[in-house]
Amino acid sequence: MVLSDIEIAHKSKMKPIRDVAREAGIDESELELYGNYKAKVAVNDLEGSKAKLILVTAITPTPAGEGKTTTTVGLGDGLRKIGKKAICALREPSLGPVFGVKGGAAGGGYAQVVPMEDINLHFTGDFHAIGAANNLLAALIDNHIQQGNQLGIDNRRITWKRVVDMNDRQLRHIVNGLGGKMQGVPREDGFDITVASEVMAILCLANDIHDLKEKLKKIIVGYTRDNEPVTAGELKADGAMAALLKDAIKPNLVQTLEHTPAFIHGGPFANIAHGCNSVLATKAAMKYADYVVTEAGFGADLGAEKFIDIKCRKSGLKPDAAVLVATVRALKMHGGVEKKDLGSENVEAVIKGMPNLEKHLENIQDVYGLPAVVAINKFPTDTDAELQAVEEACKKHGANVVLSDVWAHGGDGGVELAEEVVRLANEPNHFRFVYEESDSLEEKLTKIVTKVYGGTGIELAPAAKKELRHIEDMGYGHLPICMAKTQYSFSDDAKKIGRPEGFTITIKEVKISAGAGFVVALTGAIMTMPGLPKVPAAEHIQVDDHGVISGLF
Amino acid sequence: MVLSDIEIAHKSKMKPIRDVAREAGIDESELELYGNYKAKVAVNDLEGSKAKLILVTAITPTPAGEGKTTTTVGLGDGLRKIGKKAICALREPSLGPVFGVKGGAAGGGYAQVVPMEDINLHFTGDFHAIGAANNLLAALIDNHIQQGNQLGIDNRRITWKRVVDMNDRQLRHIVNGLGGKMQGVPREDGFDITVASEVMAILCLANDIHDLKEKLKKIIVGYTRDNEPVTAGELKADGAMAALLKDAIKPNLVQTLEHTPAFIHGGPFANIAHGCNSVLATKAAMKYADYVVTEAGFGADLGAEKFIDIKCRKSGLKPDAAVLVATVRALKMHGGVEKKDLGSENVEAVIKGMPNLEKHLENIQDVYGLPAVVAINKFPTDTDAELQAVEEACKKHGANVVLSDVWAHGGDGGVELAEEVVRLANEPNHFRFVYEESDSLEEKLTKIVTKVYGGTGIELAPAAKKELRHIEDMGYGHLPICMAKTQYSFSDDAKKIGRPEGFTITIKEVKISAGAGFVVALTGAIMTMPGLPKVPAAEHIQVDDHGVISGLF
Repeated sequence: MVLSDIEIAHKSKMKPIRDVAREAGIDESELELYGNYKAKVAVNDLEGSKAKLILVTAITPTPAGEGKTTTTVGLGDGLRKIGKKAICALREPSLGPVFGVKGGAAGGGYAQVVPMEDINLHFTGDFHAIGAANNLLAALIDNHIQQGNQLGIDNRRITWKRVVDMNDRQLRHIVNGLGGKMQGVPREDGFDITVASEVMAILCLANDIHDLKEKLKKIIVGYTRDNEPVTAGELKADGAMAALLKDAIKPNLVQTLEHTPAFIHGGPFANIAHGCNSVLATKAAMKYADYVVTEAGFGADLGAEKFIDIKCRKSGLKPDAAVLVATVRALKMHGGVEKKDLGSENVEAVIKGMPNLEKHLENIQDVYGLPAVVAINKFPTDTDAELQAVEEACKKHGANVVLSDVWAHGGDGGVELAEEVVRLANEPNHFRFVYEESDSLEEKLTKIVTKVYGGTGIELAPAAKKELRHIEDMGYGHLPICMAKTQYSFSDDAKKIGRPEGFTITIKEVKISAGAGFVVALTGAIMTMPGLPKVPAAEHIQVDDHGVISGLF
Repeated sequence: MVLSDIEIAHKSKMKPIRDVAREAGIDESELELYGNYKAKVAVNDLEGSKAKLILVTAITPTPAGEGKTTTTVGLGDGLRKIGKKAICALREPSLGPVFGVKGGAAGGGYAQVVPMEDINLHFTGDFHAIGAANNLLAALIDNHIQQGNQLGIDNRRITWKRVVDMNDRQLRHIVNGLGGKMQGVPREDGFDITVASEVMAILCLANDIHDLKEKLKKIIVGYTRDNEPVTAGELKADGAMAALLKDAIKPNLVQTLEHTPAFIHGGPFANIAHGCNSVLATKAAMKYADYVVTEAGFGADLGAEKFIDIKCRKSGLKPDAAVLVATVRALKMHGGVEKKDLGSENVEAVIKGMPNLEKHLENIQDVYGLPAVVAINKFPTDTDAELQAVEEACKKHGANVVLSDVWAHGGDGGVELAEEVVRLANEPNHFRFVYEESDSLEEKLTKIVTKVYGGTGIELAPAAKKELRHIEDMGYGHLPICMAKTQYSFSDDAKKIGRPEGFTITIKEVKISAGAGFVVALTGAIMTMPGLPKVPAAEHIQVDDHGVISGLF
């Protein structure tokens, strides 16, 4: 009988988080307990670590699944199995999608972080705090207008939206401020899901509470009729927002099923934000470990590029090796097989799908300059011939392929991967950014598209061209780019799987996130508020009379 | 120099909450720590306590302020000073108003609960959990309609609103579901502040997690075109909502500045809900104390009546004595003095204002059948002659008047009040409800108005009359009434201060809260979403680089 993730999690015996912390060298005085199995950790003296930082990324996602978080967790456990002091640094799952189709996001099988239901629900309240800070700013904007609008905000050009941590399509497009002059000023508006808030990106990129406040102050909430930006600082919102975030900024410590410490903190949308856990959590993990395993959202074209060009650039972090996660099933899908046919051997399809993996591998090795290993997240249906096809193709790139069996066996299934990672992390590496700060915004966009995506260049919609100039005029030309592109293709067309060539990327719209410190380039309709499916997962979630949750997966 | 509340709070040295709990007889295994100074407490074996329950209530509120929470906290400290085992049971403050004009709500001066900034901001996340549960249900309703509307919900008659814990008038009246057929179904809607959610009232009235689930299931979210109610249970929302609330249902333990244990839990709007802290928190306090001091929202006409007719009726709780809090300043306002003139002695105005206090005292003694003491919350401007006027009037009712100086002196300033409370709580009492369950809804309304408010009767608007019949037809005629009336007058006209007579109360609208288990009777425009003032308190709130908050008051 195959147990569900939550059943496996419930069968495991957690250690008190105080013990996990003590074994990791974290003093009890630095802990703020949230129950017995979660804690926030004080952050100080985070610089100067000699720990190795391992980035786990993946091929282009398919409906077959890759298991990036599972591999990240299992690799952490595997590293400890071979005697290394390892800590994982992961993203917090968003609450809304748990009630939709997604289920939880805390790894799977025997490579999970626990307590999984807490992590998937409110956890330590970080996202609630982010939502409150976001919505306080929104309320202050509309109140400012209602009370006389001294700053002259153009209420057709307010860019700051309210958020809710729920999949709620009904709130995507609204008109608010209705009901007469005592009830606000009518305008078009809409809600995003909390993880899509710029406050989330700011929290993930802040180096400390001082930096957090500076970043909050710079948030642009909209424009005047003269096209002048209006900031959160001008609305005097930054202090109260920071007060709401004073605990949320501290990284959260939990454990894997095998008691490996795991910092789980922050989790911005990998689309309109950079999709990595917080700088503070990664650095906290590096303070207490020799090997830190972290992940970035989506495939290596999106998440890893933003990890490098945004997170590493802003924080001084430098990865020592990368793990490229794939499944034979996903490769077959890139090779043209339908999901229902993935159960049967199809070496030809694997070979046909490999160019997707190879392009990601080339990017990691040649564009980002990192030593890489390909981790195949094992499924029972994988055949030797299929696996051999993967190995042969990777050999041409000088990369080893390692089978990862962490879903079924936890750390024991990750020992081989851990050994290869240790070997790679101690090799020389040639880490570099995709573009320079001094490049123009258009040059930065072009370099990402040509070097990372394999396209021929960019096409700028007229509005995007104009706004790029406006952003440079406002003095933000030095900021990095945050690409918002479909995760399902190297191109901006989700249907072009595998390794498309000869395409251009159309930049429809650009948007400044002055607080987080990047320029978002939107390449299509980016959904910042998901919806619920016909039968939402919520319908199956129950809690018994003792408070034990079931049906979370 | 007079210190602000937050300055006094920061100067005090808190005990680790583990020690506070141990001294109260709460085993560490029953604690779930949230940092060192907050904890959730497991709830079991709560019945059969012999503790005395003291209700703190007040005269009709005026802009002069009464200090009900301050008195509640100081009385708890005072009881401990005279050797009694006392615990306070208070309401959690709402986040939104902290950023408006109100500031925090955790007592004041030397009669505060701490850590006050945590209590006033996210605390242990209860309200965020309530907001998420509320908004999950809302998303499920609109998703149900979007996906085919099998239950036939009339989208003009959805009564369930979304909530946000923010003073945000812009969200009072909205149109959502705009943007085309993939973005929901357009309809009129609006947001309430989180504390106004029926989920809050349910959490406060639930006896355990089983009862919580049963109550959630019964929530009516709207009606079909045939006027049939549609419930949260039919939408299969109750399980996931309960999962979101599984920790929120546990009472929170903190301490006063003098280390008296305080359970702070739940805090529904005293308007459209019953305005008391949770049944579980009150019962938990009674398990570990000999004297429990609790409070109810607004004046004794609203909060105390609902405490008795809703909270006590549903939980089996029975108060042993009541404290009626007043200030000389407030009595002068009831006597017709302007706020700016409150500084000068005016015995005549006190005498003129006393009938307000006397009617509340009569209600407590004769209608609710409880022994009562009048606590005058002391101000430096009070004169002996003014105080004597109060005493003389109260003597006619057989009630003692005690000066409370807890704001300036903490428990020491509450010793005399504590002694009188102990005396009263051991007197025989004749506790009774204002009406019987078996009375018709109209009879219940009439009894509240004639017996408690001193009016001549009710007038039912045609829509209210029709809905009362509908509610009785649906089988809810046995439920208690939750009056939603201005807190500023016994009548439904906020301008009629003092002790108005010869008035009727107009019931404009009635609404069933089938989950919480009461019928809300609205007597005027009840604001369920506050707004921010011209200069919001948020502008002055700061957090320094060490995470220390200032300007919260």
